[in-house]
Amino acid sequence: MKEALLWTDGRYFLQAEQQLTNRWKLMRMGEDPPVEVWIADNLSDEAVIGINPWCISVDTAQRYEHAFSKKHQTLFQLSSDLVDEIWKDRPPVNALPVFVQPVEYAGCSVTEKLKELREKLQHEKARGIIIAALDEVAWLYNIRGNDVHYSPVVHSYSIVTLHSAFFYVDKRKVSVEVQNYMTENGIDIKDYNMVQSDASLLASGQLKGSAVNGSSHGENDMNENSKVWIDSNSCCLALYSKLDQYQVLMLQSPIALPKAVKNPVELDGLRKAHIRDGAAVVQYLAWLDKQMQENYGASGYFTEAKGSQKKEHMKIKLTEVSVSDKLEGFRASKEHFKGLSFPTISSVGPNAAVIHYKPEASSCAELDADKIYLCDSGAQYLDGTTDITRTVHFGKPSEHEKSCYTAVLKGHIALDTAVFPNGTTGHAIDILARIPLWRSGLDYRHGTGHGIGSYLNVHEGPHLISFRPSARNVPLQASMTVTDEPGYYEDGSFGIRLENVLIVKEANTKFNFGDKGYLAFEHITWTPYQTKLIDTTLLTPAEIEWVNAYHSDCRKILQPYLNEQEKEWLRKATEPIAARC
Amino acid sequence: MKEALLWTDGRYFLQAEQQLTNRWKLMRMGEDPPVEVWIADNLSDEAVIGINPWCISVDTAQRYEHAFSKKHQTLFQLSSDLVDEIWKDRPPVNALPVFVQPVEYAGCSVTEKLKELREKLQHEKARGIIIAALDEVAWLYNIRGNDVHYSPVVHSYSIVTLHSAFFYVDKRKVSVEVQNYMTENGIDIKDYNMVQSDASLLASGQLKGSAVNGSSHGENDMNENSKVWIDSNSCCLALYSKLDQYQVLMLQSPIALPKAVKNPVELDGLRKAHIRDGAAVVQYLAWLDKQMQENYGASGYFTEAKGSQKKEHMKIKLTEVSVSDKLEGFRASKEHFKGLSFPTISSVGPNAAVIHYKPEASSCAELDADKIYLCDSGAQYLDGTTDITRTVHFGKPSEHEKSCYTAVLKGHIALDTAVFPNGTTGHAIDILARIPLWRSGLDYRHGTGHGIGSYLNVHEGPHLISFRPSARNVPLQASMTVTDEPGYYEDGSFGIRLENVLIVKEANTKFNFGDKGYLAFEHITWTPYQTKLIDTTLLTPAEIEWVNAYHSDCRKILQPYLNEQEKEWLRKATEPIAARC
Repeated sequence: MKEALLWTDGRYFLQAEQQLTNRWKLMRMGEDPPVEVWIADNLSDEAVIGINPWCISVDTAQRYEHAFSKKHQTLFQLSSDLVDEIWKDRPPVNALPVFVQPVEYAGCSVTEKLKELREKLQHEKARGIIIAALDEVAWLYNIRGNDVHYSPVVHSYSIVTLHSAFFYVDKRKVSVEVQNYMTENGIDIKDYNMVQSDASLLASGQLKGSAVNGSSHGENDMNENSKVWIDSNSCCLALYSKLDQYQVLMLQSPIALPKAVKNPVELDGLRKAHIRDGAAVVQYLAWLDKQMQENYGASGYFTEAKGSQKKEHMKIKLTEVSVSDKLEGFRASKEHFKGLSFPTISSVGPNAAVIHYKPEASSCAELDADKIYLCDSGAQYLDGTTDITRTVHFGKPSEHEKSCYTAVLKGHIALDTAVFPNGTTGHAIDILARIPLWRSGLDYRHGTGHGIGSYLNVHEGPHLISFRPSARNVPLQASMTVTDEPGYYEDGSFGIRLENVLIVKEANTKFNFGDKGYLAFEHITWTPYQTKLIDTTLLTPAEIEWVNAYHSDCRKILQPYLNEQEKEWLRKATEPIAARC
Repeated sequence: MKEALLWTDGRYFLQAEQQLTNRWKLMRMGEDPPVEVWIADNLSDEAVIGINPWCISVDTAQRYEHAFSKKHQTLFQLSSDLVDEIWKDRPPVNALPVFVQPVEYAGCSVTEKLKELREKLQHEKARGIIIAALDEVAWLYNIRGNDVHYSPVVHSYSIVTLHSAFFYVDKRKVSVEVQNYMTENGIDIKDYNMVQSDASLLASGQLKGSAVNGSSHGENDMNENSKVWIDSNSCCLALYSKLDQYQVLMLQSPIALPKAVKNPVELDGLRKAHIRDGAAVVQYLAWLDKQMQENYGASGYFTEAKGSQKKEHMKIKLTEVSVSDKLEGFRASKEHFKGLSFPTISSVGPNAAVIHYKPEASSCAELDADKIYLCDSGAQYLDGTTDITRTVHFGKPSEHEKSCYTAVLKGHIALDTAVFPNGTTGHAIDILARIPLWRSGLDYRHGTGHGIGSYLNVHEGPHLISFRPSARNVPLQASMTVTDEPGYYEDGSFGIRLENVLIVKEANTKFNFGDKGYLAFEHITWTPYQTKLIDTTLLTPAEIEWVNAYHSDCRKILQPYLNEQEKEWLRKATEPIAARC
């Protein structure tokens, strides 16, 4: 009744400080006690803590209950959302259409996916599974939607049994075509709100679909396969509460790995999407360079000189938002473009130190020839999702900025060139990207890499490259995608991040000790680094070779998509850097 | 009744294959099922598995019981050792004297150590602790002995309560001086076999010592401090069984960290001991080089040419054992020498691939100018324990041997030069030593580093540098010691390992991001690497600088201990290697 606290992680510390009024207290995750510990310590014995059971996972709920138990505090499932009650002018939810992701892009039919899934259900003696993760539903049924900004998913649930499959969705979103497509694939479309009662039916073995194969021998299977599979990390407490606790099989979703390990069609699509995307980013940087010189009297992308402050003669104003709109324009001009994959982080100077900074047109900063500019952006294409970060300077960067940029680049290269045996996790290799920073006592408060979807979520599990314990559990596998994005952030002054998307591939090592098989990475992002920001004296000969090879590939791969001026700009941007002995 | 199996880890796979008769089955840890899983899978329901409760830790016993439970199998504590019953001609245990480790070498008095320990007992509301780890007893009471080969410990137990301290030992080992020393420090000496009944008394709060401070208010403390602290990793099942399970505090021993984090006197002693030890190893290599040339017509340590096989004119025969005896001789000539710290691994060619190879005079191999020679050895000195590995070749090494040696050296240097924030574990940095090997698909089946005692065990926890999960739990701290020993082993052909001892120190980084404080290593082992085995084209300029700096330090530090020929040999061995661009 007396306090208001907000918990967030290192990516948002600065942003939260700026945006929270003084009636709020910021709790820094990793530094301050976790929410459940704070509650256990600060609320009275036997306190009742209300939550919305639709907005909390089973994992989180159980962690809370464990923490609360020591003071006999209890978690209470609210029947209505208290925020809804005070949010009077909330706009109505609109019903955007569901569409089918053609198999020539998905690479695998729903029939095949359901077959594999049911084999896993059989194997675990489960009669069915409740799928609550929106991207898992989209992947399983090869459908996409527009219900979530930047993620082409549909607000929906799925329940799959040994003989039936259900799709719980606002039926206004389903066209006749999609209706027929679902029917052909043996999927029953049911109203979104039916999922709760169907979860109860599933638990009691009563859930029946219209699918032809859901007949006679079905009953027996139901008896010997008594378990209901949920992924406690994504299934909400509300649905879990409908199940017989003793029959619940809590395991990582059987869809997580098949979705993370891309099929050849998805890999091919991702490679192509990243080439078009790289072309758009290069066009953007070439355009921005021109604007910075014409309108800001900046010495520009290639030369090291202070901005000559000609701002009075400015033709157009370049703000963090206006330039990122231009970037979106370049992307929108590309084939298969469907939208951005997350809000573009277009950040000047101190704003670049806000790791997930989101500029607002009203308040955002202007570009500045004397400050670092960090741009982290990505798009959704029919054939793949992209995510790239480059950091540039249009004037004279300081030696400190250059040495930090170079340390980040060294970490970025170290991870890109790593070779490791099968079984190695993202937890083990995270350190490779940090070591060059640690040497100077620098670090970054975020993981080094996340999986990326195939025209799906830009952040995708179950694997990640991070110091976080969760990264210990999933070994990297060939054909997974993962980002390589170390950074360095100096509060109040600047931020640096370099990000490519990698595909895990089998390494072609000279030997194969222990017959484990070794893995390596293929980078599929194509946009040059700013050589002006590289202190080559800090690079090894091998690192210099790597940069030059990457740049010559960028040139070959992107030229077909560029006009003459852009080609010329790219040629200059990719000139080899020299080794020094 | 039908099978005999032996479980061992990767270090011993080859050795076990060679030494086990065909009536034994080798079970490879990490590859084959663990012993408890095998028993659960292969023995019948409700089978009773007998064990000697004095030879199994509480951790292991509980892991076994958990595995056995699924088939209702039970662990049975044997009252006698079945091996003793069939081992008729077992030699009697002889009573070697206990001696005091003077505080000028221990660096901390028993009074201080007991005071700190009792503060920890108070803090955990424990009335006492049972210390079963021999090196912890030796460290706590500043005593040493000769009961275990290579480890200067005493077969003993210790129980420390808030007011008393007990030393359980064969009293024949205790001289009047040691008796008086113990009394002065408030330690009661009791017969070794009394520990079991005293554990029961401790549990019931009845255990009383003669110490002056074990009086009046003692009772109250006993009541409010009801727990008995054991480290389930070192306390044996036999003693644990005497305690009230509900009052047992199972935590890492409060002695583990104070012992692992060396005090300034111990660090100073370790540095000095390693200098003397390095001098002995250099004298040995110089001597061996001379012998190999004179007696084996080898081209020698510095030149690359095939051995000219003059073996018929040989003066003396050089075997793995005879040369390692010579090495022991050089060490024995040094101040404060007390013996070896483990059986010298003196191994030629294929034997070097047996990670913990122990040559036998009767059967061991002869040195060979055409084969790699690996020597892993260490000694106990009054002021410190040493452990060093060098790998050399006295003829013409193959390109493959050189590239493998260089990959191992790169990993060795990468770990030595690592800088990392406080809180980093040995689990996180283990990969640094492997990455250069992984690049060619090479690896090694052992951890990268272990703690090392101060005139105590050559292997010491709780920290280690390893991929093993146990390495996840203990962050490295300033003033810990740890070895840096990557390797590569080619079964049936050769083995390479390079090992230095490191001290964890505070790093002097330019920045201190997150105010964590950063750590680095100081190497205290001094013996050159064989530059002939280094392929400098595979080294970075920084790595070449590191080797040259290390070698010039070796020269400066060791010369005072060497005669003219040895100095000349060292001068040649430490000539700078050239960078190539």
